[in-house]
Amino acid sequence: MSAVVIILYENADPARVRAELTARGIWTSPLTAAGGVAALAVEPYSAAADPAELAAIPGVRQVLEETTGHPLLRNMPRDYSLGEVRIGGGGAPLVMAGPCSAETPELVMEAAQRLAAMGVQVLRGGAYKPRTNPHSFQGHGPRALQWLRDAADRHGLKLITETMGEDSVSPVAEAADIIQIGSRNMYNHDLLRRVGKTGKPVLLKRGVSATIEEWMGSAETLLLAGAPFVLFCERGIRGYDAHTRNFLDLGSVALLRRVHGLPVAVDPSHAAGRRDLIPPLSLAAAAAGACALLIETHPSPGMALSDGPQALPLEELSQVIRQIRRLAPLFPDESAGRDGHGR
Amino acid sequence: MSAVVIILYENADPARVRAELTARGIWTSPLTAAGGVAALAVEPYSAAADPAELAAIPGVRQVLEETTGHPLLRNMPRDYSLGEVRIGGGGAPLVMAGPCSAETPELVMEAAQRLAAMGVQVLRGGAYKPRTNPHSFQGHGPRALQWLRDAADRHGLKLITETMGEDSVSPVAEAADIIQIGSRNMYNHDLLRRVGKTGKPVLLKRGVSATIEEWMGSAETLLLAGAPFVLFCERGIRGYDAHTRNFLDLGSVALLRRVHGLPVAVDPSHAAGRRDLIPPLSLAAAAAGACALLIETHPSPGMALSDGPQALPLEELSQVIRQIRRLAPLFPDESAGRDGHGR
Amino acid sequence: MSAVVIILYENADPARVRAELTARGIWTSPLTAAGGVAALAVEPYSAAADPAELAAIPGVRQVLEETTGHPLLRNMPRDYSLGEVRIGGGGAPLVMAGPCSAETPELVMEAAQRLAAMGVQVLRGGAYKPRTNPHSFQGHGPRALQWLRDAADRHGLKLITETMGEDSVSPVAEAADIIQIGSRNMYNHDLLRRVGKTGKPVLLKRGVSATIEEWMGSAETLLLAGAPFVLFCERGIRGYDAHTRNFLDLGSVALLRRVHGLPVAVDPSHAAGRRDLIPPLSLAAAAAGACALLIETHPSPGMALSDGPQALPLEELSQVIRQIRRLAPLFPDESAGRDGHGR
Amino acid sequence: MSAVVIILYENADPARVRAELTARGIWTSPLTAAGGVAALAVEPYSAAADPAELAAIPGVRQVLEETTGHPLLRNMPRDYSLGEVRIGGGGAPLVMAGPCSAETPELVMEAAQRLAAMGVQVLRGGAYKPRTNPHSFQGHGPRALQWLRDAADRHGLKLITETMGEDSVSPVAEAADIIQIGSRNMYNHDLLRRVGKTGKPVLLKRGVSATIEEWMGSAETLLLAGAPFVLFCERGIRGYDAHTRNFLDLGSVALLRRVHGLPVAVDPSHAAGRRDLIPPLSLAAAAAGACALLIETHPSPGMALSDGPQALPLEELSQVIRQIRRLAPLFPDESAGRDGHGR
Repeated sequence: MSAVVIILYENADPARVRAELTARGIWTSPLTAAGGVAALAVEPYSAAADPAELAAIPGVRQVLEETTGHPLLRNMPRDYSLGEVRIGGGGAPLVMAGPCSAETPELVMEAAQRLAAMGVQVLRGGAYKPRTNPHSFQGHGPRALQWLRDAADRHGLKLITETMGEDSVSPVAEAADIIQIGSRNMYNHDLLRRVGKTGKPVLLKRGVSATIEEWMGSAETLLLAGAPFVLFCERGIRGYDAHTRNFLDLGSVALLRRVHGLPVAVDPSHAAGRRDLIPPLSLAAAAAGACALLIETHPSPGMALSDGPQALPLEELSQVIRQIRRLAPLFPDESAGRDGHGR
Repeated sequence: MSAVVIILYENADPARVRAELTARGIWTSPLTAAGGVAALAVEPYSAAADPAELAAIPGVRQVLEETTGHPLLRNMPRDYSLGEVRIGGGGAPLVMAGPCSAETPELVMEAAQRLAAMGVQVLRGGAYKPRTNPHSFQGHGPRALQWLRDAADRHGLKLITETMGEDSVSPVAEAADIIQIGSRNMYNHDLLRRVGKTGKPVLLKRGVSATIEEWMGSAETLLLAGAPFVLFCERGIRGYDAHTRNFLDLGSVALLRRVHGLPVAVDPSHAAGRRDLIPPLSLAAAAAGACALLIETHPSPGMALSDGPQALPLEELSQVIRQIRRLAPLFPDESAGRDGHGR
Repeated sequence: MSAVVIILYENADPARVRAELTARGIWTSPLTAAGGVAALAVEPYSAAADPAELAAIPGVRQVLEETTGHPLLRNMPRDYSLGEVRIGGGGAPLVMAGPCSAETPELVMEAAQRLAAMGVQVLRGGAYKPRTNPHSFQGHGPRALQWLRDAADRHGLKLITETMGEDSVSPVAEAADIIQIGSRNMYNHDLLRRVGKTGKPVLLKRGVSATIEEWMGSAETLLLAGAPFVLFCERGIRGYDAHTRNFLDLGSVALLRRVHGLPVAVDPSHAAGRRDLIPPLSLAAAAAGACALLIETHPSPGMALSDGPQALPLEELSQVIRQIRRLAPLFPDESAGRDGHGR
Repeated sequence: MSAVVIILYENADPARVRAELTARGIWTSPLTAAGGVAALAVEPYSAAADPAELAAIPGVRQVLEETTGHPLLRNMPRDYSLGEVRIGGGGAPLVMAGPCSAETPELVMEAAQRLAAMGVQVLRGGAYKPRTNPHSFQGHGPRALQWLRDAADRHGLKLITETMGEDSVSPVAEAADIIQIGSRNMYNHDLLRRVGKTGKPVLLKRGVSATIEEWMGSAETLLLAGAPFVLFCERGIRGYDAHTRNFLDLGSVALLRRVHGLPVAVDPSHAAGRRDLIPPLSLAAAAAGACALLIETHPSPGMALSDGPQALPLEELSQVIRQIRRLAPLFPDESAGRDGHGR
């Protein structure tokens, strides 16, 4: 992920070195001094390569690299077990589903029961709701955490829920198996530190137009503070086309998972806002390498207090899950990544 | 795809109407007059719905719609046959592969022979090369068209190649089975008209930050000028993250294909520039609904004169093709689209 | 700022109504029902207009509007006085300047003394530093707040400084005259509420790709919690061109100030990262309507612990200030806005 | 504008070299080999600097640079005279104004007469109209060119008008003093070559999300084909906020003009689409360094056949011109640029 510059010997043939690099999927720009090509700058969108291999190409004197700013992330385990539930690793992606907001204990219990019946292993649901407009419904808070925990326990599910600010870190950490950091809090390093200290695994959504580097920086903050495991989650970046709201950036998902071996989830519900795009984007996310999917669902979306239009009815979710399972054979366990060290 | 406003009866209960709309995946904003909610504006990122169905909801007086600006596109056939090769329709996506640039007759012949052997049906290759820098290699022009046609004929392949400007329309139309319009020419309506007049089917790449509306407008221009069929092709929109170069917008692919039933291809080679992302993005594109993939390949990428680093070696392409074929059962023929008329 | 739909009488001539709207700078799309144009949807990038005036156009039956989600912002005063320092209002923009980070008491005192001498009225400086990488320098915290307060008091300056998280709200509120919310915290509504409760005026930076609506929503949260005044601050949105880093969106500045009469500042230092663009962008910001400029400066930028390359040397700042003062006569007091109520 | 890497001596103190660079506004990332810092990569958003000066810093062994891909642009004259009208150079920006479309000879003549009376020196107007939708009005073509030429001649104005495709290059070159390349054609290198061959000066609009490098590449193509002078024109890049439509990127304007000394114009009419933002954005563009402004105006915007809502009424244009003239003393002639050679 880091900048690389290849210094050439004075008598090297730059064209020949560049052909060797091209053969490995590496783009370069020549750097000159005193009229001659003295080095090659590697473009950041080149295929990943082992610096030692590049150093062995005839004509190459030295390979200079930016050092990673994320030593803990580099060494983080690539999967994590919550009892029998494994996050990361191979096979079909883990589905985390549930209502946007935990509106009543009955709603939560019904959702948990039906999700468990279709083989879902992780319940999601919001006790605190992030809202752009302060006059909107903000969630039921601590009471809702209890409803979610009870429903998960009753139906043998793990629970993921979001903390919205520093006050809610403790109650969320007590109730949840995985703590979710929302897109709006990705840059909130004070909150990240507090969440990291709880020692719980964390799902870290990408900020609305965050770079991969910034996203990794937030993961590093979590790990430095004590988090044992960070599951990245792509949820769409700022888009300019009103018909799809955000852009779901599956290139970053493929990069993190297939090149760097990092665990990454996708939230297709928030990506587009459109319920009719959730099924195809769920499949696409799985195919790009997502090891988990976070999907909003609701027993009767017309009754939802928040984000109902993007909630997939439970019966449609069931069909998506069946399709995703059929993709599993395509994806053997390759969580170690192609570069062998995760970045 | 068009703006919709739902006018309510004066005595309607807006909350009840909104619940009905939420149940259908439709987001709305209330519009008021004299203090009361008189109408609901439908957000463009709502799920597609039949206006007649919305008009039947109790409390709804009238459904107002923007008329489509693309009457020809709305009525375009959803698939097209070039002899035995079918574009659009169900099953695994059609693979169109070949070298970025037709550099020598031998290269082209070798690529065609090996592609045919792995079951590829359409050869792609450039005779004219679009370059940002005018001092770069610009392609071999008409001679290269002949090399491509000969290689395609010898190995029973169809040929797709790009026209770069108005002078090359005639020679390209004579040599190719499908004419490609590149991303940089999507807005070039003079060229679109000239290409449409040839009567050939067209692959229309999306402009670098084009909206879906603009893209459809260019397709409409082609159809109006006489093109029998337009295959959209997503190739990545302007990105801000250097590690993935462009953003591959699979949400638009899913929207065009799964909601509107339009034929759409994906070019994963240009999307990221990174060779190591081509396999996962090819699978993701297929899963999102792409009915064709346009992939750059080269027998020995280290020797390529242009864009070598993004050319997938032939043996890796072969593996991608095998994986994509395994996805086929997931995608029965549903090219008619969910809205029944393609938009 | 809200969606507007114009309902026509059945016998109205849509072309004539549209001409009247065009004459007022208003873009529309026709909405049809049963084949006829029944309404006109106003595009959000139209010039501001008075709904009552539109309702009086012959052929118009009713003007429907989205109600503002920001009632407090609409009624917020358009300027604010801190003793003799006035934020908002007319004339040349207020300059707020100082070092990125308060590194030592000596640095802060020297900067304050020299800034006061050149007529600057507000000292800025960071006690807590937001950093993407958790291994970087994070600021001196509470001690630095004291250095800043002392320096401001000694030289008759007002002080603006940033709170980075909920723990620092109280000490920052105690030390500062204006509390700064950074770009990364614009969406952090828990923090916004806590800052609002302090009763201090707030400078609210725009999130990295925030929409104007989201930005206003955050201001509304501050006002609802008790803030007396919010000064918006544009600091560049996510860019795709490496040479200018972010895009400074002066269109939004002009819109907030010149159309809606809201107080808005510009931070040209963070916008581009480039020191050589700070002078022209400062002038451009003033010309677009900024009522304040937030500029990083340093007595010796080579010694800065953070963001030194974007710190303008004090002597260059002095020249920028002189140029900006010459613009003042162009901008009489027009803070009331053209729409008479700020949005 | 090009990538720069600074190679250090083995015994150099990287911190000391970085401090020297920071003092010059230069951001760097350390590049390591065998554990030690061997070089510093200069970030592209650093202030411009003279490589020879950097090479003289103690500890620096060598400064490597990407060679410019635009040798002709580097040597292009920084201003150009059309009779008494000077493009580029210092003072207040040149105003080029007129109707979006040349609809009738009377309209054009009236506009020219009134513009000349307010001191405008260049008439703009479209004979061919680029439209997203092929069913819209496309302009009057060659006849309209004659109307424009006649009106310009009668009132002593120079004429700028746009060529939309290869067929219109000759008639436009014959009628116009300056040929305009629209945003949609910036990447159309076939057209650029044909326009360059006419030997006329060219106004080159930036493509909708073009990078500065791509924009310069198009200018280089024009110069290589024979154009004597290229005036860049920023007109807004793809935006995500509906209220301002596009983002006017004045950072790029400041970079091209104030750092590289290149001639650059701004089109505030297309940037936002909003008539009410044209006056403040015109002033901001002038302050950022624009040497020309391209403004749509219309004697009666309600009657315009295309883009009427963004046409500034003539009386408002007159006021904008008066304000811009008052900015002139701020901008002495500094067209040579700070890097002495334009890039």
